[in-house]
Amino acid sequence: MSDAGHPGVAAVPLLPTDEQLAAFRLAAGFECAAAACGLKKGGALDLALIHSARPCAAAGVFTTNRFQAAPVRFDREVLATSAGRVRGIVANAGCANAVTGERGDLDARYMAARAAERIGAEPGQVLVLSTGVIGVFLDRAKLDRGFAALGSDAASRAPADVARAITTTDTRPKIAAAEARIAGGTIRVAGFAKGAGMIHPRMATMLAVLTTDATCEPSRLDRVLRAGVERSFNRISVDGDMSTNDTVLALASGASGLAVDDSSEPAFEQAMEAVCASLARQIARDGEGATRLIELAVTGAESEPQAHRVGDAIACSPLVKTAIHGRDPNWGRILAAAGYSGAAIDAARVALWFGDGDAVQLVERGLPLAFDRARASTLLGTDPVNIRIDLGLGSHGTTLWTCDLSAEYVRINADYTT
Amino acid sequence: MSDAGHPGVAAVPLLPTDEQLAAFRLAAGFECAAAACGLKKGGALDLALIHSARPCAAAGVFTTNRFQAAPVRFDREVLATSAGRVRGIVANAGCANAVTGERGDLDARYMAARAAERIGAEPGQVLVLSTGVIGVFLDRAKLDRGFAALGSDAASRAPADVARAITTTDTRPKIAAAEARIAGGTIRVAGFAKGAGMIHPRMATMLAVLTTDATCEPSRLDRVLRAGVERSFNRISVDGDMSTNDTVLALASGASGLAVDDSSEPAFEQAMEAVCASLARQIARDGEGATRLIELAVTGAESEPQAHRVGDAIACSPLVKTAIHGRDPNWGRILAAAGYSGAAIDAARVALWFGDGDAVQLVERGLPLAFDRARASTLLGTDPVNIRIDLGLGSHGTTLWTCDLSAEYVRINADYTT
Repeated sequence: MSDAGHPGVAAVPLLPTDEQLAAFRLAAGFECAAAACGLKKGGALDLALIHSARPCAAAGVFTTNRFQAAPVRFDREVLATSAGRVRGIVANAGCANAVTGERGDLDARYMAARAAERIGAEPGQVLVLSTGVIGVFLDRAKLDRGFAALGSDAASRAPADVARAITTTDTRPKIAAAEARIAGGTIRVAGFAKGAGMIHPRMATMLAVLTTDATCEPSRLDRVLRAGVERSFNRISVDGDMSTNDTVLALASGASGLAVDDSSEPAFEQAMEAVCASLARQIARDGEGATRLIELAVTGAESEPQAHRVGDAIACSPLVKTAIHGRDPNWGRILAAAGYSGAAIDAARVALWFGDGDAVQLVERGLPLAFDRARASTLLGTDPVNIRIDLGLGSHGTTLWTCDLSAEYVRINADYTT
Repeated sequence: MSDAGHPGVAAVPLLPTDEQLAAFRLAAGFECAAAACGLKKGGALDLALIHSARPCAAAGVFTTNRFQAAPVRFDREVLATSAGRVRGIVANAGCANAVTGERGDLDARYMAARAAERIGAEPGQVLVLSTGVIGVFLDRAKLDRGFAALGSDAASRAPADVARAITTTDTRPKIAAAEARIAGGTIRVAGFAKGAGMIHPRMATMLAVLTTDATCEPSRLDRVLRAGVERSFNRISVDGDMSTNDTVLALASGASGLAVDDSSEPAFEQAMEAVCASLARQIARDGEGATRLIELAVTGAESEPQAHRVGDAIACSPLVKTAIHGRDPNWGRILAAAGYSGAAIDAARVALWFGDGDAVQLVERGLPLAFDRARASTLLGTDPVNIRIDLGLGSHGTTLWTCDLSAEYVRINADYTT
């Protein structure tokens, strides 16, 4: 489970194997359970609880969509009123509890109260996550059955099952873990996520939970989480859509007995970013109908925001994503997307490569080069597909992840609710 | 050929029939010819010439993509140096002459010179349009064969064939015409366009030529053209991509003997907008793989730009477009797109309808209503599909056009160059 991009870190390169799922553990100090309550069809796991015996530090990053789902509004309130000290998270899949008005707010509160009751906490100490269809009310009778199951032998205590319980159209759960050496020992970050469609930078129908055994003030945890999210979940795109429910939550149990301070914060941040980046790549790789991960490096930019802007236009272009799906080295679409990104690029300075280590160069100073079409096509068939565009303007850059666009994406999304 | 949206105007509602194509004529004062030069495979028409016996007023609107194709750079220069007085337009399909550097500039100039030679004009009096694959140089030997054919019996003089010659993945040519009564008589606007993929507001791989028999100063023609483009071609989206070559050109021959002045400009502008809007709808309807036109009305906005911003996010959402393709009344995706559009909307004021004349309401004040799912699904199966979102904030609005997203879109674009 080593990851080339983050040496010494245990992360999943593309999607987790059954072995990696079976070996997955949350950070020390956390327990979890998953059950089936009937919100998903066919008796699949759809209700999950992650909790700590003692209050733990919490931080959250939320969707910027103007239609904020009830759980998003609820969690913002909990983080504010608890000053970032909570006992756990309850999550469901199958119903997003979004565009549900006041009744939705009450339903989110109800979920938190039932979860608090189960773990012996106050209702204001539990965060809520929901994902699924928009505009449908939560079924409290089903939730009640689910909470009863969570306390019984019917529940699974396997962390991989908790990761599975929050998935919707995902083909696999997403998991990742990393360690950081700080003064006094080693702290651990372990997280899981869901998301396959409606994924876009600045949060999508994407949920992620990060746990750590470090002791960390809520304000520091918030800062570290935001830095990690910015270079991971905010760098992926499946279809350019951004959902009403996207949430990343981090919980710090302190079970390691090791506190993060100013000197150890960079190491902690590196571990957090590594876990977030691995989860983000897994989400992009598991994009609805995707057959390959696309790793897009933008270099030579005047600033990181400029690099991000150019990369975002390319990563969101259906024409680029379908061309890669068809292994068609139609690089003009990549340049066209860079050109309409809104970034102040100079067409006469742009260079483009396919493949890891700049295997085949297609464009130099904005002009086409003769290239081996068969080899270029082969490089678009690898998983991940590596593409690099250099703007020739400066020394900044960033990496983004997306996936190819297949006919299967249309089939999945043409009849999601019916 | 009447159009409900613009009473008294001859325009094509969805896509032109064979009869409508056969009856299509440019405005008086213009001649045209089309030939096959081999840039397209299989001997299809791919070279076209539209010209006036005398210099005519000209205006152009061009792509904002940073990678401007050679013909775009060339046309800007011609319009500037000729002060908007030209003799005609030469157009090719099969090669975009984009990302081709100085050689591309010379090739655009060569096309104009050969066309000027054929019609007895100066090289600086001919505008150039190109569409097709990016990053490939124009084949001058093929162009030479094409220009020879244009002067022979091998050429077609039918305006519909000229419209056909500039198409690429279009299933049908796009044509439209309108008349305006002004003091002294009636003037006419007749135009054609191409575009099916890589279509996006603010110009896409979309070419359009508007002809009129009015006498009109170039500066006035430019103003009228920009107004027409803003509410038509800038209101369509097929896949959110914006090409390197998009160009709309207008030519005024003056053959009617009627001059447009300040008092008749509104009538002329109305006719120009009607033709542009009809062509824009045809482009959206003929979007790659599309099975239905989607006409999206945004009302109740604080301003027209706000309405446009919200509409653009909805019209560009692959999740919305695939849901409509599958006749799935999953309206949450429409609200989610409005929510991430960046417009300052108030979720609690939003209302949503499917169908013409607000047939089925799904959302009121940001909350879901009980609705007849079978009827809603039927309304998503009509052509065009009508959707209206009201923001409840003001009295401004706009209409946008897009199409559904089918698996056929992926098949078309996965192997465009190979």
